[in-house]
Formats: sequence, structure tokens, C-alpha cells
Amino acid sequence: MQKLDSSILKTVITPRPQESFKGTFGKILLVGGNHQFGGAIIMASTASVYSGTGLVTVATDPINSSAIHSQLPEAMVIDFNDTKAVAQLTEKVDTIVIGPGLGEEVESKAILENVFQHTNEHQVVVIDGSAITLMARDHIAQPKGHIIYTPHQMEWQRLSGIKIADQTETVNRKVRDELNATVILKKHHTEIYTDTKVYQLPIGSAAQAVGGMGDTLAGMVGGFTAQFRKNITNAALAATYAHSAIADEIAEQQYVVLPHQISHALPGFMKKISLMGQNHTIGFHN
Amino acid sequence: MQKLDSSILKTVITPRPQESFKGTFGKILLVGGNHQFGGAIIMASTASVYSGTGLVTVATDPINSSAIHSQLPEAMVIDFNDTKAVAQLTEKVDTIVIGPGLGEEVESKAILENVFQHTNEHQVVVIDGSAITLMARDHIAQPKGHIIYTPHQMEWQRLSGIKIADQTETVNRKVRDELNATVILKKHHTEIYTDTKVYQLPIGSAAQAVGGMGDTLAGMVGGFTAQFRKNITNAALAATYAHSAIADEIAEQQYVVLPHQISHALPGFMKKISLMGQNHTIGFHN
Amino acid sequence: MQKLDSSILKTVITPRPQESFKGTFGKILLVGGNHQFGGAIIMASTASVYSGTGLVTVATDPINSSAIHSQLPEAMVIDFNDTKAVAQLTEKVDTIVIGPGLGEEVESKAILENVFQHTNEHQVVVIDGSAITLMARDHIAQPKGHIIYTPHQMEWQRLSGIKIADQTETVNRKVRDELNATVILKKHHTEIYTDTKVYQLPIGSAAQAVGGMGDTLAGMVGGFTAQFRKNITNAALAATYAHSAIADEIAEQQYVVLPHQISHALPGFMKKISLMGQNHTIGFHN
Amino acid sequence: MQKLDSSILKTVITPRPQESFKGTFGKILLVGGNHQFGGAIIMASTASVYSGTGLVTVATDPINSSAIHSQLPEAMVIDFNDTKAVAQLTEKVDTIVIGPGLGEEVESKAILENVFQHTNEHQVVVIDGSAITLMARDHIAQPKGHIIYTPHQMEWQRLSGIKIADQTETVNRKVRDELNATVILKKHHTEIYTDTKVYQLPIGSAAQAVGGMGDTLAGMVGGFTAQFRKNITNAALAATYAHSAIADEIAEQQYVVLPHQISHALPGFMKKISLMGQNHTIGFHN
Repeated sequence: MQKLDSSILKTVITPRPQESFKGTFGKILLVGGNHQFGGAIIMASTASVYSGTGLVTVATDPINSSAIHSQLPEAMVIDFNDTKAVAQLTEKVDTIVIGPGLGEEVESKAILENVFQHTNEHQVVVIDGSAITLMARDHIAQPKGHIIYTPHQMEWQRLSGIKIADQTETVNRKVRDELNATVILKKHHTEIYTDTKVYQLPIGSAAQAVGGMGDTLAGMVGGFTAQFRKNITNAALAATYAHSAIADEIAEQQYVVLPHQISHALPGFMKKISLMGQNHTIGFHN
Repeated sequence: MQKLDSSILKTVITPRPQESFKGTFGKILLVGGNHQFGGAIIMASTASVYSGTGLVTVATDPINSSAIHSQLPEAMVIDFNDTKAVAQLTEKVDTIVIGPGLGEEVESKAILENVFQHTNEHQVVVIDGSAITLMARDHIAQPKGHIIYTPHQMEWQRLSGIKIADQTETVNRKVRDELNATVILKKHHTEIYTDTKVYQLPIGSAAQAVGGMGDTLAGMVGGFTAQFRKNITNAALAATYAHSAIADEIAEQQYVVLPHQISHALPGFMKKISLMGQNHTIGFHN
Repeated sequence: MQKLDSSILKTVITPRPQESFKGTFGKILLVGGNHQFGGAIIMASTASVYSGTGLVTVATDPINSSAIHSQLPEAMVIDFNDTKAVAQLTEKVDTIVIGPGLGEEVESKAILENVFQHTNEHQVVVIDGSAITLMARDHIAQPKGHIIYTPHQMEWQRLSGIKIADQTETVNRKVRDELNATVILKKHHTEIYTDTKVYQLPIGSAAQAVGGMGDTLAGMVGGFTAQFRKNITNAALAATYAHSAIADEIAEQQYVVLPHQISHALPGFMKKISLMGQNHTIGFHN
Repeated sequence: MQKLDSSILKTVITPRPQESFKGTFGKILLVGGNHQFGGAIIMASTASVYSGTGLVTVATDPINSSAIHSQLPEAMVIDFNDTKAVAQLTEKVDTIVIGPGLGEEVESKAILENVFQHTNEHQVVVIDGSAITLMARDHIAQPKGHIIYTPHQMEWQRLSGIKIADQTETVNRKVRDELNATVILKKHHTEIYTDTKVYQLPIGSAAQAVGGMGDTLAGMVGGFTAQFRKNITNAALAATYAHSAIADEIAEQQYVVLPHQISHALPGFMKKISLMGQNHTIGFHN
């Protein structure tokens, strides 16, 4: 296992091409947020918008519409039960993030299956939270696309069948190879399983151990893969690294880091990285 | 084509007359924001309020009412399906902005036609986004008033019939003359076609290439034309210039600029300009 | 006519007695905000809360409940159509503010009459906006209580019968005497008619000429009279002075002042005043 | 009666263990917020989230869902009338806070009884506001668990039967012993009755005498007891001390302290304390 280091950031977050328009920076669809867990999809969507994704749409329970627009007018909203609209949009976007606050109800499963039926191999599909649990529980096949899972250890146990105590690099890697997906296994020192390597995240702290932190990560992975499409794996690695690097900066002043604060810090953090260019060392201590 | 320069700002944004009241600074009606695209009309309205328009009313889908009041108590809200109320208000205001998030549904068209039937030649009508697409698709005649279109290139293709690749100054100008309207053609280096001249905006950057940036511009053009009525064309030019000048300032610290951040920076930016008076050079680098 | 000067501030805004609880600082009920003008009652309520009123309740259209709680969890909310609840609360509070965004509909009138029937001579009643228009239009008698009107010139014309052009000190004063009320006549250089004197406000600027500025003033007059009950007239004078003094401070950096910004600046401004004590001159330039 | 001093803070707020996840820092359920008093439960929940509780769920009137998610996406929301969901969640959490804005209606009582039937002796139950009044009025038995009451003097009179004028240390302590609960008696110089001692809070000021201050305290006591479980009494003492210590810092710049401002300052305040370690004196003046 190799330590992920800060050089991944400047590899991915480069100055934007000036000849561009919002379509250049990707379209994303985030699916989640039932009547109980609306905050999860709000945090994921906030992360996507502040990452700089060109166009962000949220498919969610209509009850969350007003709360989303209240704080994130930059996002568009559709009803996640509108099968046709969700299917059409799924086909059009660059990245789909599914799971934050989706729930595990009959309705949740129907939404998941609708989305999964309409992805294609050119897209990135980030599968998080209850979407992972639903797949495992109901034996739902993995959809088409470049798949990225963002499970915590219990969700990974459900999906992979590997008990938490047995989740070693070797066995995790074996299941990853069968899935042919990127796996971001969230834990103290998160591990990232790609098609060629296994990375360990050496940064981050217990100040991040609060609800919503994972939703924000899923939204950032979505935002980065939608926008930095040259190398999807690197985009996911950079998102994961940036998420904890920003949290570490905030944790210098705070006992806990609120997930939305990471998103709000993204535009400033990404600017600093983009200015570093390819020739400079980054001042993170790892 | 002439480069638009920062001198337009101080020409337009002058100190407010002290003998005044809120009516002095214009009344505006913004029409848009269906069930899916509520954020668009929120961003446009925010831009109008922070520009300093005297009275701002938003005609929108009632679902957006709560989100608007949550962040913008300074705006009033009416149901855009209330034909009579919209018609009455349309007749009373100085500027109408129609299009941000309006959608392209049967309902959207009915709302557009209602508004178009009630404008008059003393008013400014800013036509943006789906309103342009609807006009082109359904061959809806241009309404009465000082018309300002704010299309991106594809919307301009729909309205003018000129393919994007063929959108040269000469042909664009020809269609503009037929329309007898101001056209703010949004692109990398936005072009503004007025009755006498064609300007190119030499500022702005890819940090602005995110959803909602155009809605904010439409709201600013609305806010400036409602408030600075001495010369409507200059007001529109100043709004366009200010929009990117503020974005450039924010982009010095941020990888992307969130549209609402431009609006929130407006009162401070406009103050700086108004203090420059007529005798000073402005410190923008162009 | 006497110029109101900054000494009124330190007369009224004195350090809080330490042996106190929230009831010490008054209870207020604000009534207004129909389906269209919800923002008005939000701005008035924000002003009351940030003034430091002990307990703030808003009687409004239920559609505004969510937007109020989104930005002002410190306020309580009741349905302004709940005749019984409104009547009961009216009887219990120290100050009632009625009018911001109330509207002029049948419903609005019924709400007004319900409130007016339940005030008593120990209370302050601040009558603003559409409440003034309704009283004039429908010949509704003035309620019991220490009455404070906050009309702009057209509303004063409606209430007093004096045409705007004829609104001189002498005739205004005559009507005020008949009403036996305090009248805060909002205009360029606002005038305040009390039982013994007429004041002119020498501060303020055109940066305040935006919608919602009067709603914020009404909320501040409410908040000050609920809290500083030793001398109601002085409390109203101090609120009016503070409103423009804060706006002038903000306007040094901003082309326009957003009404909610005045409210948010109140706790800091009032602290500065309370520290000045009785022996110091205040540094406002007038 | 012993003066509570700042050393309680560093005893409780120690650096987080790095080998941890969000479950390490507790699960909390807050119950309250009817159609009128939604703000109360929002303020309590905000305090819990910003304290750093691992997982925060709010059981409230569905009308408050949107306002909660608008400002606090980190919290989850369930309908407080959903008897089964509330019962299940009650059994799973570490701390329950019940009362802020719950109301005193038939519905409120049913919700209270449902929660009380499902607590157990391993949990902390913080009983505040209308929950105290309901228990006293309807003779509802104290639930299982480590009970913490947070009454103001009138609520304590209702619960204990001791008239405010008679609330001396001796009689208060006697009732506390019968209840076998911690009692945080909110007043000018709040008193805390624990199983072994009585403390007086020597800090705090009249700047805190505004609605919602107690809701914020209840949420902090909840957040601290959910997270710092080694010594529940100390956690409650630290929360009470921190609440006024932060308020005192804010009150140096503000005439009144808005309750939500205390919550927003919590992560920074707690960081400072956690850095002080066990060997340093804290710079509070008492």
C-alpha cells in the first residue's frame, strides 16, 4: 500500500482552459435525499457546486427542493420519483452520484434501479451510502460506467462480503478486481483501491468524524470526475486528498469540522493548487 | 468591433441624488423559475436587489417562494400563473427580466405570452434563457419596449438562425438591426451589439463557466437599466462590464466564482466606482 | 422643527440591568406578511430580534413560516388567520407592530380589526405600511395604546388627508394632535412628530432608498419600545436615529444598503453606544 | 454552594482520539418544535451539531423540515408524530433532548409519553421547556436514564412545587435528591444541582436574556453528554460553563447575543480549550 501524497492535487487541479463554457466543466446528476435524509444530498450537491462542476442537477424528494434552493441556487432540482426525467438526465450527464440520503425503502430501490438502467460506459458513477447497502441487500447488478464506490467499512462488508476485521489489502483488492471499480474505503486513514494500485490517505483527523462528512466526499468525487475527465482515477484521488487536506486546515482552528465548511473552502483551496503549477512543491506536511 | 473598457462604469454608476425615494431607483419584475429551475430566478433576483433597484418583484412558481424569502427578504413574490397579477405588474414596472429558469413547457409559453402582451415602449425588456428559446421555437413576436437579449451562442443560433460557426460580427449585426434590439452574446469574450456599435468584453475568465452565471448577468442588466435610465444602452454595457470585473476580482482568490458571490460584491464594487467621479482613471487592467 | 441629534442614542441605549431575564426586555408581536409580501415581515422581525427584544412572535401567512425559521430561529410564528391565538397574544405583549407586508385584501382587514380590538392603553402599537392604508381606506378607528405611525408621504396623505405638497410642519402637527400619536414621517430627512416636539432627522442617505428599509425601521421602533419602556417617545426617536446612523456607516463602503444589513449591525452598534455612558460625546458628525 | 470555574472545561473537552469514527462521538435525538415554536428545536439542534456530536436527528413537526435543512444539512429529520420511528430511534441513541418548542398540546403530550416509554438507564435524557411543564401538569413519571432538567425558575416551580421566592439551595437540593437527577436551574447566576454538589455559575450576563438562549443550552448539554460520556455530570457542567463563557466573549462586542451565534462559535472555542491540555491555566477571569 502506497501513501497518497499531495502531488496528486497539482496533477489534477490545473488552470482552466480559457476557451471554454460551462459544458466544458461537466454535467453532474446527484440522486438521493429522501424525506428523512435531505441534508445528505444537500451536502453532496454543495460539494459538487463549489468544486466547479459546470452544471449540477439534484434528483431528490420534492420536500428538499426549497432547502436546496435556499442555500444553493446554483443547483437545479428534479423529483427523484419522476422516472422519465431522471432517466433522461441520467443519460446526458458526465457523472452520476447516487446514494447520499437515498434511504433503503421500496421507493429508494426503484429510484436506484431506474438510474442504473440508464448509465453508459462513458460515464462515471459514484455509488455511496444507502445505494451500496441496497445493491448488497437486494443483489442489484453493478451498472455500466466507470464505477467508484465510497463505502465506510460496514458498507464495504455488505458489498464485498468481507467482515470488517478481515478487510486486509489483499482480500479487499481481490474483490475490487472482481468489481472492476475504484473503491474509496472510508476509515481512519482511508484506503483507495484502483485498477493498478492501493493508496492510503495519510492525512485527516477525528475532527472529521461527524455526520455528513462522507456525503461531502461523494459530492467532491463527483465534482472532480465530472470536471477533470482526462484521468478519472486521478480525479477521484485528488478529491479524496483535497477533502482531508481542507479539513486539516480548518481543524487547526476548530474542534470539529462541519462538512459544509469544506465545500465552502474549495474554491480558495483549488485556486492555490492551480497556481502552484507543475514545478513547485506543495506545503502540506506529509 | 470595439473593446469595451472600464470607463463605461463611471459614466453610469454615479452618486445617487439625495432628493430621492425608492421609486427613484426603479421598479423591476423578474419572471422565471419553474419547479425545476428555481435557482435561476433566485440568482437573477439577487443580482437585481444587490444592484440597488428600488423595488424588486419576482413572478415565479409558488414552490420557489420560501427559498426566495429565505435569502432575499428584500424581494416580493407573486405566482407566475396568476395571469391578472402578472399583467398588472408588468404594466407598472420600469424593467422586465424574463427567462431565467422559465422552462419550455406549455405553462412557460403562456406566461411569456401574457407578459409580452403587456409591455410598452417606455420599458426595458431583458429576454434571457428559455424565453429566447421559446420565442424561436414558437415564432413568438418580439414585445414592445427597449429589448435586450442575453443569449449564449446556441440560443442566439435559435433566435437569429445563424449557426454558431457563422456568428460573425457582420451577420450578427444584420440580424440585430432587424430586431432593433441590444444583443449581449455571451461567450468567451462576450460581444454586445447595440444600435450603433459592437463591443467586445476583454475581461472575464473560465472561472465564470458555471451554471447561474448568465442568470446573474440578466438580473444585473435588469437592475442597472431599471435604475440608470438616462441611457439604457450604457446601463446594459456597464452591467456586463461590472459582472466580469467583479468575477475577475473574486477569481484572484478562487478557482471558480459562484454566481451569487458576484451579486453580494455589487454594493461594494459600485461604491468604489461612484467615488471615482468623472476625473479619475479606474484601476482595472485593460 | 428641531434637529434630532445623536445624544438620543445614549439616553436610551444604556447598559442592561444584570438582575434580569428575557421578560425584562419585552415581548413583541409583529403582524404582517401575506402570500406576496412575506419579506416585509421577515425584515421587520429580524430588526426586532437583533434589537434585543426578549421574546419575538410573528403572526403571518403560514407560507412564510419556513423562510422565517430558516434565517431567524429566534422568532416564534403563528398563523395570522388564527383569530383566537392572535387575540390572546395581542393582549399579552408590550409592543405590537402591524402592517409590514400585511396587504390590503379582505383578509388583511379582518386581521387588522382583530388585533385592534385587543390592544390596551399600556401597550405600544406601531402602525406601518398597509395597516395605515387600510385604516384610511376603510375608516378604521385608531386602537387603544401608545400609537406610533410610520408612514411614508403617500401613506400620510391617505391617513391625514393632507396632500404631499401641503405636508408642512404646522398642518402635520395639527393632525398629529388630533390623533394623539407619534408620527414618524419617512422621507428625505424624515420628520418625527411627538406630543411636544417636531424633530428632523439630519442623517441618512439615498443609499437607503430600497424596498424593505421602512419595514426594518418599523421592526426597530417595535424592538426599542418593547425593550426601553421608560420613555416610549425617546425609544422611538432612538430607533429612528440608529436606523440611519447604521445605514450611514454601511454606506461608506456600499452603494446601497440592504435592509437586513442594518439589523445585523444592530448588536455591535448598540454595544458601542451603551459603552459611551452619559458623559461622552458621540462621534457621529451632525 | 460552590462557584463553577473554568477548569471544568479542560477536564471535559480533551483532544479527540484519532482511532475513531462518527459513532465514537455519540448519537443524539432532539424532540420538539411544533408548528409555532420550530425555531427552538432548530437552535437546540444547531448547538448539538456544532458541539461535534457524531450523528444528530431531529424529531419535529414536518413543517420545520425545510427550515432545518436550509441551515443545518448536517442534521437528519423525522416526523415527531411517527410513533414507531421515534420509538426506534429513542432506543438507539446515547442522548435524548426533549422539550424545546414541543408545546403543551395533546399532541405534545403523546410525543413526550412515547419517548419516555423507550428510554433506558444507559442513556442521558435532557428535559427542557414545555417537557418539564407537561410532566408537572399531567403528573408524568420521570423516564429511565441519567436525567438532566434544564428549567428556568417558573418551570422549576411547576416541577418541584417550590415557589420561586422559596427556591433556596436547601429545598432545591431536597427535591433534586428525590428526583435523583441533575438540575440546571437557569437564572441570573444559574445553579447546577448534581448528586454530590451544588454549583453556581459566576459568568454570563444580561446580553443573554433573549428567547432561544435556553434552547441553545439544552442542545449543548445534549451534545456534550452524547460525546463526552466518561462523566455525564462533568459534561453537563462543561456545557453550561462554555455556553456563558462564549456569550461573554461575544458580549464584549455586542449589546445582545443571538443564541445561534454561540453555537457557531463552539468549534473554535472548543479547539482553544482542547489545546490547553491539563497543565495550563485558562485565561477566563473568574
